[in-house]
Amino acid sequence: MQIDGKAYRSIWPVKNHLAVEIIDQRKLPHEFEIVRLETLEEAATAIRDMYVRGAPLIGATAAYGVCLALKESPTDASLEQAVAVLQSTRPTAINLRWALSGMQKWLANLPASERLEAAFTYAAQICDEDVALCRAMGNNGFELIDTLWKQHSRTINILTHCNAGWLATVDWGTALAPIYMAHDAGIPVHVWVDETRPRNQGAHLTAWELGQHGVPYTVIVDNAGGHLMQHGQVDICFVGTDRTTASGDVCNKIGTYLKALAAKDNGVPFYVCAPSPSIDWAINDGLKEIPIEQRGEEEVHTLSGIDVKGHISTIKITPDKAPVSNYAFDVTPAKLITGLVTERGVCEASPAGLQGLFPEKYGTLT
Amino acid sequence: MQIDGKAYRSIWPVKNHLAVEIIDQRKLPHEFEIVRLETLEEAATAIRDMYVRGAPLIGATAAYGVCLALKESPTDASLEQAVAVLQSTRPTAINLRWALSGMQKWLANLPASERLEAAFTYAAQICDEDVALCRAMGNNGFELIDTLWKQHSRTINILTHCNAGWLATVDWGTALAPIYMAHDAGIPVHVWVDETRPRNQGAHLTAWELGQHGVPYTVIVDNAGGHLMQHGQVDICFVGTDRTTASGDVCNKIGTYLKALAAKDNGVPFYVCAPSPSIDWAINDGLKEIPIEQRGEEEVHTLSGIDVKGHISTIKITPDKAPVSNYAFDVTPAKLITGLVTERGVCEASPAGLQGLFPEKYGTLT
Repeated sequence: MQIDGKAYRSIWPVKNHLAVEIIDQRKLPHEFEIVRLETLEEAATAIRDMYVRGAPLIGATAAYGVCLALKESPTDASLEQAVAVLQSTRPTAINLRWALSGMQKWLANLPASERLEAAFTYAAQICDEDVALCRAMGNNGFELIDTLWKQHSRTINILTHCNAGWLATVDWGTALAPIYMAHDAGIPVHVWVDETRPRNQGAHLTAWELGQHGVPYTVIVDNAGGHLMQHGQVDICFVGTDRTTASGDVCNKIGTYLKALAAKDNGVPFYVCAPSPSIDWAINDGLKEIPIEQRGEEEVHTLSGIDVKGHISTIKITPDKAPVSNYAFDVTPAKLITGLVTERGVCEASPAGLQGLFPEKYGTLT
Repeated sequence: MQIDGKAYRSIWPVKNHLAVEIIDQRKLPHEFEIVRLETLEEAATAIRDMYVRGAPLIGATAAYGVCLALKESPTDASLEQAVAVLQSTRPTAINLRWALSGMQKWLANLPASERLEAAFTYAAQICDEDVALCRAMGNNGFELIDTLWKQHSRTINILTHCNAGWLATVDWGTALAPIYMAHDAGIPVHVWVDETRPRNQGAHLTAWELGQHGVPYTVIVDNAGGHLMQHGQVDICFVGTDRTTASGDVCNKIGTYLKALAAKDNGVPFYVCAPSPSIDWAINDGLKEIPIEQRGEEEVHTLSGIDVKGHISTIKITPDKAPVSNYAFDVTPAKLITGLVTERGVCEASPAGLQGLFPEKYGTLT
């Protein structure tokens, strides 16, 4: 997508240097800074300290982390250590595990002398596959916006939560891919961006990436979406998913469930952009089977932004010694979801809906 | 209620000085500072710049503002000017209008020489009436908590939104009154405090006042309440109301509607503490008839807290030139409300429910 008129991905190799570059997302939207990763440790730090975030981008960064380790030493020991170090950076990120186990399987059988080049090739392939996945999903979601546009012939208002944009993937994004495609196709769209406390990925990242690409948007507090839906100011919702069950329940950023309830209450279509890698075919009941991680208390206690002097500053907003709780995700039951947008098409959020698009996943179970 | 073990109201006269004192709520929870108001202009500033907020406390402060004007000059012109100045501070605050028109009617017919003493008497009466109203409402809400306690014999978990505590009234509060009474009666309660973006009255004020009084609480982001209700961690919700319709719709701080939806979806009782002065008997359909005020954009762009040096600091959290929208309230339809807690008792949020408690309001219409 575009930054200041120039096309970017969220991670890219710098070939001559055998390095990769990323955007330091911790500083967005206040500073746009590209960081070069040259070692395994730098890649691990970029993941652990959240220079990069979003499951697909974490996976891609881990894959390149293995490349950087092999640049130093292409031995079995080096490969194993790289996988172990990177695996420990974000233990619950599912794409991280796939990327690393894929790299390991691919590379372990190659002679050490061929590993470095093969690793860069494989990492690039992981990136390209993610872009293709997002593009296919975006095309399918685009149809939903295009239909609304043909119905209404006015700006289509879309609500999204958190950041499921290109900054969370390699390009296009998941929930934002249909929106970018509609915008690029000339359909007038406007996005209501939930700020998404506690980490404010909406106000920080979604607002920034939409603005850079030229998509009209408005930042709102997380409390406001219901009111907008009551007053006909939202035509459709698109959100991402961290984990989708085989029955169509969706685990996503905390607060997604509240917006889905409001959408249902007001007849606003609520779509989840769920690439098939996000679907956990082994579980059904999201509320009972998905454990919800509690993240650090400081995320609730504090917020970062720009102070009056223009410096990035962190402030504490709670009383001294205030107890806080910080569940990171919630589960939106399938009954509240109008449809799942996948790379193969749009389906009902139900076992039957998913089986229609992914019969092979169910065939093996019968 | 208690601050550091000492009983306070949110406003009190300092008799020897013919002045009043308030708590500067803008600095809470980071600094506890008592401000003395000695002139009409100081009282107007305290209301306009939100040293004090909450409809009942605004009304009480305005009443004392009239007293301070009459201290300077008890003439008709002075009285009229005081009412005009104070009225313009927060044009939409309903208690402000009542308090001022009540003072004006009471005082205009008295000889100038008797006005000052009468004004202080009348202002004190406005305060005492508010305390009595909140106490009666608190007693009625207490019964709901007491019933849960007798059922479960464990800590009763209560969710609240925004600040409808004693800081918003003169004492006790509205939504928090039942909670203080349960706590004071020895019932183990725990309060989930929504931070309540954009102004964070939950994290700033509700957390502070509960903590000072010794009531156990936990601050959560506004996104979290639905997840807690899905997992049985909320037994009952109490919220306040800025305006209640004759059919039981409730206009309250933005985001209240989302919590009411989640409560309904999970079978959690959702009560609104609605003193009868908050009920607008002339309107029925909250969604259609209550205009929702948009407040300043800076409330969404910025947040205040304590910086690393311990100073109160304001930071900007959105991208440069980001468009924002800031609806201050939303309407929760009566269908989502388990009951209204009033000073006369608890009733269904419906015309029939309200008519049962306030027959005189309906009698005049038939």
